[in-house]
Amino acid sequence: MSLRERAILGAGARSPWACDSIIEPQREEAAVLDTLEVPIVQAPMAGGPSTPELAAAVAGAGGLGFVAGGYRTPEGLRDAINRTRGLTDGPFGVNLFAPTGAPADPAVVRAYAEHLQPEADRAGVALGAPRFDDDAFDAKLDVLTTDPVAVVSFTFGCPSAETIPRIRATGAAFWVTITDPDEAREAVAAGADALVVQGTEAGGHRGAFVDRENRVDHGLLALLQLVRAHVDVPLVATGGITTGRGVAAVLAAGAAAAQVGTAFMLCPEAGTSAPHRAALASSRPTGLTRAFSGRLARGIVNRLQAERTATAPLAYPEVHHVTAPLRAAAREAGDEDVINLWAGEAHELAAEMPAAEVVARLMDDARAALAAANERLAGVR
Amino acid sequence: MSLRERAILGAGARSPWACDSIIEPQREEAAVLDTLEVPIVQAPMAGGPSTPELAAAVAGAGGLGFVAGGYRTPEGLRDAINRTRGLTDGPFGVNLFAPTGAPADPAVVRAYAEHLQPEADRAGVALGAPRFDDDAFDAKLDVLTTDPVAVVSFTFGCPSAETIPRIRATGAAFWVTITDPDEAREAVAAGADALVVQGTEAGGHRGAFVDRENRVDHGLLALLQLVRAHVDVPLVATGGITTGRGVAAVLAAGAAAAQVGTAFMLCPEAGTSAPHRAALASSRPTGLTRAFSGRLARGIVNRLQAERTATAPLAYPEVHHVTAPLRAAAREAGDEDVINLWAGEAHELAAEMPAAEVVARLMDDARAALAAANERLAGVR
Repeated sequence: MSLRERAILGAGARSPWACDSIIEPQREEAAVLDTLEVPIVQAPMAGGPSTPELAAAVAGAGGLGFVAGGYRTPEGLRDAINRTRGLTDGPFGVNLFAPTGAPADPAVVRAYAEHLQPEADRAGVALGAPRFDDDAFDAKLDVLTTDPVAVVSFTFGCPSAETIPRIRATGAAFWVTITDPDEAREAVAAGADALVVQGTEAGGHRGAFVDRENRVDHGLLALLQLVRAHVDVPLVATGGITTGRGVAAVLAAGAAAAQVGTAFMLCPEAGTSAPHRAALASSRPTGLTRAFSGRLARGIVNRLQAERTATAPLAYPEVHHVTAPLRAAAREAGDEDVINLWAGEAHELAAEMPAAEVVARLMDDARAALAAANERLAGVR
Repeated sequence: MSLRERAILGAGARSPWACDSIIEPQREEAAVLDTLEVPIVQAPMAGGPSTPELAAAVAGAGGLGFVAGGYRTPEGLRDAINRTRGLTDGPFGVNLFAPTGAPADPAVVRAYAEHLQPEADRAGVALGAPRFDDDAFDAKLDVLTTDPVAVVSFTFGCPSAETIPRIRATGAAFWVTITDPDEAREAVAAGADALVVQGTEAGGHRGAFVDRENRVDHGLLALLQLVRAHVDVPLVATGGITTGRGVAAVLAAGAAAAQVGTAFMLCPEAGTSAPHRAALASSRPTGLTRAFSGRLARGIVNRLQAERTATAPLAYPEVHHVTAPLRAAAREAGDEDVINLWAGEAHELAAEMPAAEVVARLMDDARAALAAANERLAGVR
């Protein structure tokens, strides 16, 4: 029985509105993570790198693939799910952006767009119109209801109390990305079956429930220790895990699985652009910025990030829409200077090889790393 | 034979100026770490928390104790070494601040002192006179020459090429604290026997060779993976390791030992002040600041840190001397609002118990964590 079949059977066998719905799905979720052949989750990387081919390759290698629901249209999400399912019988999840933000002050967005106008002039494109939207959240939930997947994970917050039963009703496990112990407690109180624990090392957007100035961020290892002390659901560790040593370390820290993104970005199955691939293979530093989207994210520092980070406002997704034509033109032109080069801190260790080989190598190296650590402890008092 | 005797014999048996001196001391160092009964190193916490009693307790429990050489007078360092030696036969090291900085612009320091004047008025003390100094580096090296210890580690940089043979001549292993792969390569090229790999989670000062605005910092787990890919000496991991799970994780990531600071700060043997202890036992957030010393450091955010971080300049140790009377008065008065509350990100997990019990608990929990990770991997493909 495939994990998908298990998930669907699981949904049929219980009522998600029963009194014990907070408890029971945790057992269901434990089953989802327990049935993985290898404790590797492919990070959902919205905006290009994630493809049905990548999700299918990771699922085929025994891990959990992910379709990035963010930025897609509902039809595009349905298509990506169907294409992934056509490529693998293995388990995969869908990640959605939780609709938790609020519109920014239009004057602030306008001022930043004016600040970016020289970039648009240089690229010969018009900047996009700023708009606030919820990334078609309800329509995407409808897609997941008619076409259920093994896991639905959320970034940017915990969905509303009305939404959670709709997710559970699909039979999917309900995961929430968290970046601090307070968010962890809030997600578990809402009934999360597992937490994606995102350290500051992670590439792409911070999954924080609320983006704000001077927010406290945590290194992954500190965060895993803290979160484990506060909640008791399975933890999926993410942020800067690019080697088998990293996988072994988060398992030793108590995670049930490692969620890996950057390590898959050079795979032939990934949709990573050519200039992005070149930057990933270098040892160039990463930094946090709101310059591309109006929300804090980690990318390899290029010219636009270096020059515009200081003035970029908290205005997501308005700024995302403003810069979209600029980024698209730059990707087409192979001009890395104005592309969001999302990458985790250990990106230079990503290897260019098929995703199944990445998974196999991570697991071989994780086993060797754990064996070495065991040997180290066997030799001491 | 005690580790100290081994170290001294080791020094006598070889010429540190021989052609192979870069290679051979690495073997010596491997021996230092290999002879530890448990792979736990007490972090040198200059400015109060480190005491001879704490170093001796950790050494007595099978780990490596540390005497913080920073801020002490040379006579104070000699006294601390002698007192530690009087309390234990176990191994301990001394940490020194590498004299790598340059004087700040006096006008910048003066402006910050004026900015702090209301704090001094409120506390009823005079601010200290700013001065640039090297923390009596040469005189402290003389102390270590006449009274050698097992390890001499450096923070804030790699000592000069002239200095390194003086350290080696004492028989001590030569460790350098690093915060990025470039520093790691530089330290190993200079002959470091081991690297203290400091993640951004760490409490107290960042050990970076050069403090500057917008410096890229790394989470510990990402940094361990990166550094291991670049250098081949033993790594001592530090930053936010407060539990046995954290110890197990860094060993799995390839570290030879975990250097633990905050986890010892509530021990009765530690010199941590009462208001500092109260803050450590809370779940209050930490942040990076130059407000207290003019050099970037992580502390629990209190009023002074919250209000003065934005204006604090890069001016170490000038600002340290300016704020010294203020901090001393506040510690005496039990006023936590103006004390540097150095702490790692996972400080709320520190336990109030004797240091030997902290070591024993870390090791018991590390073994259990590794066993659980092994079991997780045994159950998968």
